[in-house]
Amino acid sequence: MRLISTLLLLLLISLAYSSATPTRRSRKSTRIHKPCKTLVFYFHDIIYNGHNSKNATAAIVGAPAWGNHTILANQNHFGNLVVFDDPITLDNNLHSHPIGRAQGFYIYDRKEIFTAWLGFSFVFNSTQHKGTINFAGADPLMNKTRDISVIGGTGDFFMTRGVATLSTDAFEGEVYFRLRAEINLYECW
Amino acid sequence: MRLISTLLLLLLISLAYSSATPTRRSRKSTRIHKPCKTLVFYFHDIIYNGHNSKNATAAIVGAPAWGNHTILANQNHFGNLVVFDDPITLDNNLHSHPIGRAQGFYIYDRKEIFTAWLGFSFVFNSTQHKGTINFAGADPLMNKTRDISVIGGTGDFFMTRGVATLSTDAFEGEVYFRLRAEINLYECW
Amino acid sequence: MRLISTLLLLLLISLAYSSATPTRRSRKSTRIHKPCKTLVFYFHDIIYNGHNSKNATAAIVGAPAWGNHTILANQNHFGNLVVFDDPITLDNNLHSHPIGRAQGFYIYDRKEIFTAWLGFSFVFNSTQHKGTINFAGADPLMNKTRDISVIGGTGDFFMTRGVATLSTDAFEGEVYFRLRAEINLYECW
Repeated sequence: MRLISTLLLLLLISLAYSSATPTRRSRKSTRIHKPCKTLVFYFHDIIYNGHNSKNATAAIVGAPAWGNHTILANQNHFGNLVVFDDPITLDNNLHSHPIGRAQGFYIYDRKEIFTAWLGFSFVFNSTQHKGTINFAGADPLMNKTRDISVIGGTGDFFMTRGVATLSTDAFEGEVYFRLRAEINLYECW
Repeated sequence: MRLISTLLLLLLISLAYSSATPTRRSRKSTRIHKPCKTLVFYFHDIIYNGHNSKNATAAIVGAPAWGNHTILANQNHFGNLVVFDDPITLDNNLHSHPIGRAQGFYIYDRKEIFTAWLGFSFVFNSTQHKGTINFAGADPLMNKTRDISVIGGTGDFFMTRGVATLSTDAFEGEVYFRLRAEINLYECW
Repeated sequence: MRLISTLLLLLLISLAYSSATPTRRSRKSTRIHKPCKTLVFYFHDIIYNGHNSKNATAAIVGAPAWGNHTILANQNHFGNLVVFDDPITLDNNLHSHPIGRAQGFYIYDRKEIFTAWLGFSFVFNSTQHKGTINFAGADPLMNKTRDISVIGGTGDFFMTRGVATLSTDAFEGEVYFRLRAEINLYECW
């Protein structure tokens, strides 16, 4: 009988446990989370400067009254809206075979320092990956690393969520920027 | 006693199973997911061309140096930012009673082909639906269908996530576009 | 024996229950959800009007053909794209110590009434909070309250999701807007 009551107790614990699973809800923020998938890519942003329309992968398309559409506005570019279609590569070489495109926009949003807000997608259609990963978030680009949200995905990345850590791998003047993106996915379907 | 040990075994399996439930984490990508809700809508985009300000539901509000604000830029519209407030209908008739509005923006982001990045909401306030569904993602609009992310919702669509499949149902020149959206929700609260 | 069969039955129920946990999937929309965290902040938007570039925290950076970049367009601002970097305070006083910045953009998207689409982040780097909360959604700003989605977060707000309820706490002409944001998070990691 003791065994049976132990069993009953275990059962109750089991039931309580499973009915409380709210997987997300009660997770402690101190807990270290292990990603279900990690990916590293580079993308390459070449901003239109009035002379490089052939090579440019990005262009300023909105600017405040004091700005213009080819020169990055003073006041740390505040208000410049840039649209981009950047090649994605597996290593840090601009001339490597692109395995996808980073497409979307950023908008410089501080007067005191370079900071941007990003909305974009990685669009893959290669043997490695098919589908898209969608991103949004603040990019305080003078920080060595900065985290943005993976807000969804399609195809191989159906319904995924996670965090991407961006770092500026290299830049040349205000025209070429190479970004490294380490993508850690914590929800994989 | 054998029955009891079987029970114990089952219990342990049950405990192991429920403690591993990380609902999202270990889902196989090969598994077919069944949506918790499917919705189909049409929305109707009439772009301002300099003459139709009364009927227009969309206007170009940003453009690169080589573009302008009424004519879509050459180079496949690259850089044009369009804001829209389109009626949503249940069938493909522009003149059907709108049951909501599709509101937000898209930004053309390729030089070689028409491709856009979308950020918008379906805003409902009708007997059928109250609340909003929020979307973001890449829209390679020359593809027959393309998938974007449902990144959240409010009201009837509280906290929802999913994937929406867009297709261009009809268009007239570069002014009228009718889009069909099949929304598959995989997280319903 | 009856006890044992009861146990078995319970076990089966337990197993069935835990294998069906799809935490999100089957939640009834009628169920009242309890947030795992609630936060209240104020943020302060001062739009550039051509004369206040020093104090302005926001500027119009895109406008349709009929608009311009310092005066809000007629037709209820339709098409104006505004970038902002607003101080966040714990109370409704513009001059309180800011505990973070609200950074991103909004875009007026109706001709008939003031309505905007928002994409932005709360960026914290204070003793209270470190990290970001990312938002997207429709803001029908003439409504007393309106709900937008919390689509992700980083740092203290790693992977969070929820709903933020915005209300216009005060405004002066078309230059100063004070917004109250009550953030209810329903996924806390």
